[in-house]
This record gives sequence, C-alpha cells and structure tokens, in this order.
Amino acid sequence: MRIGIVAPAKTLDRLAAERTAAFAAIAYPAVDLVFHPQCFESDGGHFAGPDARRAAAFLEFANDAGFDAIWFARGGYGSNRILGHAMPQLSAAAKAKAYVGYSDMGFMLAALYARRIGRPAHGPMPVDVMRDGGDRTIARTLGWLTGDRQGLEPGLGGRPAAAFNLAILHSLIGTPWLPDLADHVLLIEEVSEPLYNVDRMLFTLANATQLRGIAGIRLGAVTDVQANDPPWNEPLETMMTRWCRDMGVPFVGRAEIGHTQSNRVVPFGVG
Amino acid sequence: MRIGIVAPAKTLDRLAAERTAAFAAIAYPAVDLVFHPQCFESDGGHFAGPDARRAAAFLEFANDAGFDAIWFARGGYGSNRILGHAMPQLSAAAKAKAYVGYSDMGFMLAALYARRIGRPAHGPMPVDVMRDGGDRTIARTLGWLTGDRQGLEPGLGGRPAAAFNLAILHSLIGTPWLPDLADHVLLIEEVSEPLYNVDRMLFTLANATQLRGIAGIRLGAVTDVQANDPPWNEPLETMMTRWCRDMGVPFVGRAEIGHTQSNRVVPFGVG
Repeated sequence: MRIGIVAPAKTLDRLAAERTAAFAAIAYPAVDLVFHPQCFESDGGHFAGPDARRAAAFLEFANDAGFDAIWFARGGYGSNRILGHAMPQLSAAAKAKAYVGYSDMGFMLAALYARRIGRPAHGPMPVDVMRDGGDRTIARTLGWLTGDRQGLEPGLGGRPAAAFNLAILHSLIGTPWLPDLADHVLLIEEVSEPLYNVDRMLFTLANATQLRGIAGIRLGAVTDVQANDPPWNEPLETMMTRWCRDMGVPFVGRAEIGHTQSNRVVPFGVG
Repeated sequence: MRIGIVAPAKTLDRLAAERTAAFAAIAYPAVDLVFHPQCFESDGGHFAGPDARRAAAFLEFANDAGFDAIWFARGGYGSNRILGHAMPQLSAAAKAKAYVGYSDMGFMLAALYARRIGRPAHGPMPVDVMRDGGDRTIARTLGWLTGDRQGLEPGLGGRPAAAFNLAILHSLIGTPWLPDLADHVLLIEEVSEPLYNVDRMLFTLANATQLRGIAGIRLGAVTDVQANDPPWNEPLETMMTRWCRDMGVPFVGRAEIGHTQSNRVVPFGVG
C-alpha cells in the first residue's frame, strides 16, 4: 500500500510529517507514505505554494498508478482555487484511488465525488497527529485505507453518506462542484464560526435546490465557536431541528466528526 | 409620501429613530415617517422580536395601501428567517411600493425582486444617521424615494443593476430566493470579514450556475476587514480581476456602495 501525501491548501509543518511517518512505520509497516515536497512549500505564508504548483503536485500523485491512495496533508484555505485546473486533468490512474481529508479538503472530495473519480472519504489527516492522542486519530484513516473498518463513523449503517465542514459545503452550494447527494445522509461539522453565521449557513443549506432529496442531516462537533454579540442562546440541536423542519428532512442526531481528536472516517456513498 | 419603517433583523436604537425623524421633518417636510413599534422590540438581544413578530410587522406595513414605501430600519442578522413566511403573503398593495435597505436586508430585496414585487433598492437606512455626516447618508434614500436622483450610485448608466453585501449574496446562491440577474451589473460590498473568506465567497460567486449571464461586477467598499492569519497580501482589485476572469465577466471597477457614510442608492433593475 503506497500512499501519496499532497497539500492543496496550507503548508504542512515538518514535525507533523515526521510524527505521522514515525507512527505509520511502526503501526502500519506495510504502508509506504510518500510526502510530496510541495507539502512543505509556502507562497506568502497562506498557501503551500502557488495555485499552479499545488494543482501540479496533486495531479502528479493522483495520476501516478504507483500510488493506491491520496492523503491530503491538512486543511486551511485554498483547495477550491485549484479545482478548475486540476479536475479535468485527472487520468484513469486517478480513478483507482482513495482520497482522504476533511475541512477545506471538502472542496476536493466534493469535486471528485461529483465526477465519480475514485473513492473520496472524509477522514483525519497527517496534521491531526499533533492533537492529544493524535496517533489514534490518524490511525483511523490509515486503518480504513488498509481495510480496517474500526475507524468508520459509527452511525453510517450501510446508507449512503457524505460529510462536510458546513462552511465548505456552503461555498459549494449553487456551483457544479457540489455532487448529487440525493438519498444521502449528510454529516456536517463546523469550527471557528459565530453561531449567527452557523444559522445563516443552515438557511442556505435548508433552501438549497441542489440538496432537495437528501435523506437526513447529522451534526458533528461544532468547536472553537467564536463570540456572538449579542449572545446566541438557542441550543445547537434546536437550531438544527428548526432548519431541518424547514427543509423537510429529518435531523438524525449527532455524528462523530469534526475538528477533534475523535474525528472519524466517512466514505462518500456507501462506506 | 408616507414611509413605513420596520426591522426584519436587529433592533433599532431609539436615538437613531429620533435623529432620522428630526432630520426628515426639516429636510423632507412632505414625508411622513412611521416607525413600527416592532423596530424597538427585542428577542434575546439578537433580533427585533421573534421571527413571527418581525414577519407580521413587515406584512402589516407592506400590505397597507396607505404607505408608499417600506424603509428597512437597519441590518444585523435575521431577515432570511422570515422570507418563507412573509413573501407568499404579500398583497397587491405590496406591489405598489418601493423597498429600501442594504446589508442583511439584501435577503428581503432579493426575494422581492425575484417575485417582481415592488421596486427594491439598495440604499442607506435610518441606522446610518448615526454616522459622521449621517444626515447626508440617509438623505440619499429620502431623496430617491421623493423623486430626486442625486443619491443614485454614479456609475449605473441606465443599465440593469443590483447591489448586495457579498456574504448575503453568498447565502442566497443556490436558493430560489436569488433573483435572475442576467444582464445585470452586480455591485458587491463587504464588511467585517477576513480576506481569505472574501476570496472563498468570490469562488462561489464565480462558479454559481445562477449567476451565469451577468453583465459585469463592480466592487464597493470593503471595510472593517478582519485580521487574516497569515496576512493576505493580494490587493482587492487583483482578487476581483482573477475571479471575474474565471467567471468570464468583466470587472468594471469600484462602486460607491458599502457600510460607509458615502453609501449610495442602487435601484434593482434599471434605476
């Protein structure tokens, strides 16, 4: 099992790469992790290299039949900026791979799933090794890629699913990059937003023409919530129930995904 | 000329209402301003009353043939939450009115324009009287409502136009509340966002299926920009040019709209 690691958004710290490699060498000796040098490059601090460089590194590894999977190094911001250039250039070798990441990488997973390219999955990334207990976090992705289902989100139940950061999903709505999610249970999570903005993004989700026909919604972790002025007093579950009622889909409860140590794997489609 | 004032989002301060009324009494003696008591109500601090109350106050004034125009008191957050209830209940009297506001009120203006109800216009609101030189700011709306074209955004040039806060426009994309803006020049402005998020919202705008066919984009003020970590070094005009190129529409330059003293009136359609 050979896994290529690229960074379509922000630069990966070398320490995270070293820890991920060290853990994988011991716990998954049959896995060969290859970090593309692009992971460690920087373009003005915000991106792991210019758009063209990030797109080229992704294409180089995705189109290389020598890799079984692409593991996205981390989120941040910017993978949306390479979709238009990269997606049309994926080859047959790209279709035989799994792709794992979350957060900003939702742009990549969505675009791949919309084009039925490979097996996209929401799941922990190398950057997550830096969390307390981060070995266990990244083990869920390494396990899933090597055939172990223990890292899967426990409520999937054999139904089609997809998982997104809410802000990323919001940014996809109304564009052709959003896949058809009819009959899917949609899992969402959020980080670093004030609750009025979560409510506003749920308005868009609930009114989105493209999302009519989804089977239900589950809510993952909502972490690092930014201050709301004035305070937002409504509990998250009430907010979810209200918008799901407007949307006419069931709120199916909480989900074990998010910007957390306990984030789990959600293969797009039937996992 | 009788103008009804309601607050579909946040509570209006009484001082802003008093100053607006005092200025209008002197400068526009033929105008009768009527503040709905709902403007001053509060529901947990965030909204000017519960959703049902805000919707009812809007419907009461909009459906009253005794008013010539509805002037939205201020932005904030929350007018999106009353669209589903309020819009289907607008009567013939509502169609004979002008509607003026901006920021969060873009939800109202969009929904009205999508249904061809009345004459929606982006323009200063009573809350703006509190700015330095705020008398001149609100005079643009009062002037436009009474037939004076001096408050119009100077670059409209007789072409169809529409103006939005970018975050509100982003929240409308992908929903049936967004009007058909084919052949319109789209004016956008933003406040209190970090630049990575402005870039991300422009991605959605540039890729939005519903916005194919717009005539061009102009950029208003981008104010109170939140810190970006790491810093975002690209100038705004470069960012606009890049996304407009992706979208295949011309970036037509700057516009005099925004969360500013100099914010001007942009009637939706041909002004």
